[in-house]
Amino acid sequence: MTLKILVAQLNATVGDLVGNAERIRQSAHRAYAQGAQVVLTPELSLVGYPPEDLLLRPLFLKRAAQVLDELVVQTSQWPGLAVVVGHPRLLEGRLVNSATVARDGAVLACYGKLELPNYAVFDEQRYFVADGAPVVFESAGKRLGIAICEDVWFGRAAAMSKAEGAEALLVLNASPFHLNKQEERLAVARKHVSRHRIPTLFCNLVGGQDELVFDGDSFVLDAAGEVCARARRFVEDDITVNFSASGALVPGAVAEELSADAQAYEALVLGTRDYVLKNGFKGGIVGLSGGIDSALTLAIAADALGADQVTAVMMPSPFTAEISLEDAKACAQALGVKLSTVAIEPMMQAFTKSLEPTFGGPGQGLTQENLQSRIRGVLLMALSNETGRLVLTTGNKSEMAMGYCTLYGDMVGGYAVIKDLLKGGVYRLARLCNERAQAAGRPQPIPERTISRAPSAELRPDQTDQDSLPPYDELDDILARFVERGESIDDVLAAGHDRATVAKVLRLLRLSEYKRRQAAPGARISPRAFGRDWRFPITNRFETEKEMPQAS
Amino acid sequence: MTLKILVAQLNATVGDLVGNAERIRQSAHRAYAQGAQVVLTPELSLVGYPPEDLLLRPLFLKRAAQVLDELVVQTSQWPGLAVVVGHPRLLEGRLVNSATVARDGAVLACYGKLELPNYAVFDEQRYFVADGAPVVFESAGKRLGIAICEDVWFGRAAAMSKAEGAEALLVLNASPFHLNKQEERLAVARKHVSRHRIPTLFCNLVGGQDELVFDGDSFVLDAAGEVCARARRFVEDDITVNFSASGALVPGAVAEELSADAQAYEALVLGTRDYVLKNGFKGGIVGLSGGIDSALTLAIAADALGADQVTAVMMPSPFTAEISLEDAKACAQALGVKLSTVAIEPMMQAFTKSLEPTFGGPGQGLTQENLQSRIRGVLLMALSNETGRLVLTTGNKSEMAMGYCTLYGDMVGGYAVIKDLLKGGVYRLARLCNERAQAAGRPQPIPERTISRAPSAELRPDQTDQDSLPPYDELDDILARFVERGESIDDVLAAGHDRATVAKVLRLLRLSEYKRRQAAPGARISPRAFGRDWRFPITNRFETEKEMPQAS
Repeated sequence: MTLKILVAQLNATVGDLVGNAERIRQSAHRAYAQGAQVVLTPELSLVGYPPEDLLLRPLFLKRAAQVLDELVVQTSQWPGLAVVVGHPRLLEGRLVNSATVARDGAVLACYGKLELPNYAVFDEQRYFVADGAPVVFESAGKRLGIAICEDVWFGRAAAMSKAEGAEALLVLNASPFHLNKQEERLAVARKHVSRHRIPTLFCNLVGGQDELVFDGDSFVLDAAGEVCARARRFVEDDITVNFSASGALVPGAVAEELSADAQAYEALVLGTRDYVLKNGFKGGIVGLSGGIDSALTLAIAADALGADQVTAVMMPSPFTAEISLEDAKACAQALGVKLSTVAIEPMMQAFTKSLEPTFGGPGQGLTQENLQSRIRGVLLMALSNETGRLVLTTGNKSEMAMGYCTLYGDMVGGYAVIKDLLKGGVYRLARLCNERAQAAGRPQPIPERTISRAPSAELRPDQTDQDSLPPYDELDDILARFVERGESIDDVLAAGHDRATVAKVLRLLRLSEYKRRQAAPGARISPRAFGRDWRFPITNRFETEKEMPQAS
Repeated sequence: MTLKILVAQLNATVGDLVGNAERIRQSAHRAYAQGAQVVLTPELSLVGYPPEDLLLRPLFLKRAAQVLDELVVQTSQWPGLAVVVGHPRLLEGRLVNSATVARDGAVLACYGKLELPNYAVFDEQRYFVADGAPVVFESAGKRLGIAICEDVWFGRAAAMSKAEGAEALLVLNASPFHLNKQEERLAVARKHVSRHRIPTLFCNLVGGQDELVFDGDSFVLDAAGEVCARARRFVEDDITVNFSASGALVPGAVAEELSADAQAYEALVLGTRDYVLKNGFKGGIVGLSGGIDSALTLAIAADALGADQVTAVMMPSPFTAEISLEDAKACAQALGVKLSTVAIEPMMQAFTKSLEPTFGGPGQGLTQENLQSRIRGVLLMALSNETGRLVLTTGNKSEMAMGYCTLYGDMVGGYAVIKDLLKGGVYRLARLCNERAQAAGRPQPIPERTISRAPSAELRPDQTDQDSLPPYDELDDILARFVERGESIDDVLAAGHDRATVAKVLRLLRLSEYKRRQAAPGARISPRAFGRDWRFPITNRFETEKEMPQAS
């Protein structure tokens, strides 16, 4: 007897029970049409991931149970097909992160997750209790075990399944993307699963959910731990897996690898698209400055939503260089995005004059600089109110880390497209955009001059970012080590960084916590973003920069 | 032999290791001077609570260990005095929430917390592993057990201590305030501790930390579960506890009870003061509107920081009623706060004119209304930039719940003083303010007219809040049930609320999640605030209002 399994890499939406059930049904249709005996869906595929505190609401759990029951009954439409669905299950007042196998209109088996991640972006111990009792069911004469995501980051679940006689392991995942995550997943799977010499099918979620992007990247490992099928990333996709009559896995399609920069770019596009569309908006607004951050943000927005669904607006001040105006125009034109221009000088004058009696003068430099940024914020929001389009924020991670951004000014917006991308990454992705455009015979969206000129906020004459910040290559490496990879300060210093520079970075990082707390969400693409996986107090007297170990 | 124990209700600051150690030392000095044999401090007294992701930083843990070591050595200054300190302890790579007993320059005992809360505002399983091995030490011939906070919300820890021969239990707490929390604490202590007939000393933290306020309220229960000593709330305080030679507890001072409104008021004052001062600011700025929210916020700010450290600013538009100007002036005057006035019409005109070519007209009503609110936000932030004072936001919880507030407009600010106070509470606390002022022979800060007139945002002619929202008494009761107490929708409906009103509230609550995500922190005084204990996805297609059970 041969066995065919469809691994359905779905884009579920949090809370959309009826819509997610429909997606699962369509997968079952496809599986049945292809003669498959099993269709596998991602972790919590029925409710989306992570549902967060919706899991504390009785009505949500009740409706999820009802929708699951309906789905179970409907499996009688596909005789012999086992449908594996992820969902929360309430058992005697305790909630279990579960996988139900339904076939021929009835529940065949139900597995509960054993390992509940409660670190980084994960809070599963807030909601769930651990189960982990092994579940094995039979299909086409083959015994199949089940595990859920974190379970395979430890050895126990696979070992227990194997001990129960499983001949292959089905794994439901909601494993969020960050750069190099797929290597980690593979290494872990090989370490904890393949050593049991059991073929394993990983079905991962795909799509954006607030700060998280799920990249899909579902894959199948044979008993030797070799990849023998792999789904495309950042899109919904199916893998069809065949076991021959002898029980051997038949190699399937292996999707092409993407470069690290292409992965980051696709993650930002998907995160932006899903945030905007799943929240019921149709389009976005980007404030262009003539600089590289806003140019890249616009390019991503145009890819995510379509150029006609994006509006760009240039808001020059007397400090805006002529080349900034030219470059902004060139960028919008190359992307086919409509550009408006609103000069901010009349508002600068009105504010300055109105505040003069209180200030007894025009106000200090910083006050004046922030005023410009905030006038732009007000204009962007007025455009958003008027058009119903969502403001997409343009700040990058290096700025956000250092507080080199203005609250209620350039931080204004519903979604911060590149907030988890360090400045060096902004340059790399800008070049990637241009290369792709060139390869497709389209005009390059990011003007060469935007890439080559020194970055500036243009809030005063002759300002550059490096007046306030360390050079970006140093800054980015310190941030990548300390923030993203969680290296100790000893390790950061051992990498050769200047002590005074490290101390300055640590100080600014601490002092700008209050700004980040009020920032818009944005796609996480690094191992640690400034979001759910960065929970630092604002009120914090631990001055890391002063506690640094003395030079030896 | 008699035994004397000092329960030191301290205001520790997160991260201020040296400062917290100094506070603990001063408590030890006081205890020794009074002839006490034991001094008890709050949970994590050395590092403050909650330290959040600082606990993931090796340097932080290393410095905490060093400061603890120094403190242990220093206990030799107070011969025979056992100092009980709360701190994180790294044991073979695993972190334990610990209490160390130090005496005569050495460590006498070390206890590790057993029950790790991971619900509501708590994330302890993100950081700590459970220990709970019972620890009993002897002082003046009496055997004393130790427990930490959540431990006494369950029965195990007290039972194990008792089984090890403890004759009294010392409990280190960092139990945050919400209304009626003290009754909960007492009931739980009686249920889980007093049934073992063991006298119990609860030492709680006091002070504000970002969203949390710790109210102190340390207390001592005798073996029968009766309160025989109680500290004052919302201030640092000591309780001195005496056991007679026969081992009986000698009743001590029991601080006076505060009314619920007085508790809420003191919590908001303490939260505001500690946020402003612990973050290195000296003063605050409040935008007055002539309405009750900003008047109450100003009164709290003046109580928290001193009237001379607060600036008020009135920013009238053409829609501002004359009585609003008068009432704002009366409020500032009564409180002795300096008031500036900046009219916003010039900026309204400048924005409208500048946007006209893009809009093809003056812009829609909502655009125009938000513009006014955002101009005020920009002015407040300019004043903050210029003076170095922190903007204190004036929005209440009913507004925040419904999204009846403008992002980057009236939501602007570093700390949201009354964000966890429903509108009904705003009225009650305003009256309390006036009663207190009257009793003290001071002018009443909140003009009677501000209390009696219909609330309005004054963003268009003849606007009132009830144009957009259900009557506040209905709205507040629905929010208190559904948000604060976590009642099911069935229960909310069973309380007699109109279905259509409940549906409207649920809808607005869901749709405004994105605004709350960018809101300033503010003191939590209810069982569930819109902060760390409210983790709802923004992208959320579960339309609770449409899933409501049908009327029967």
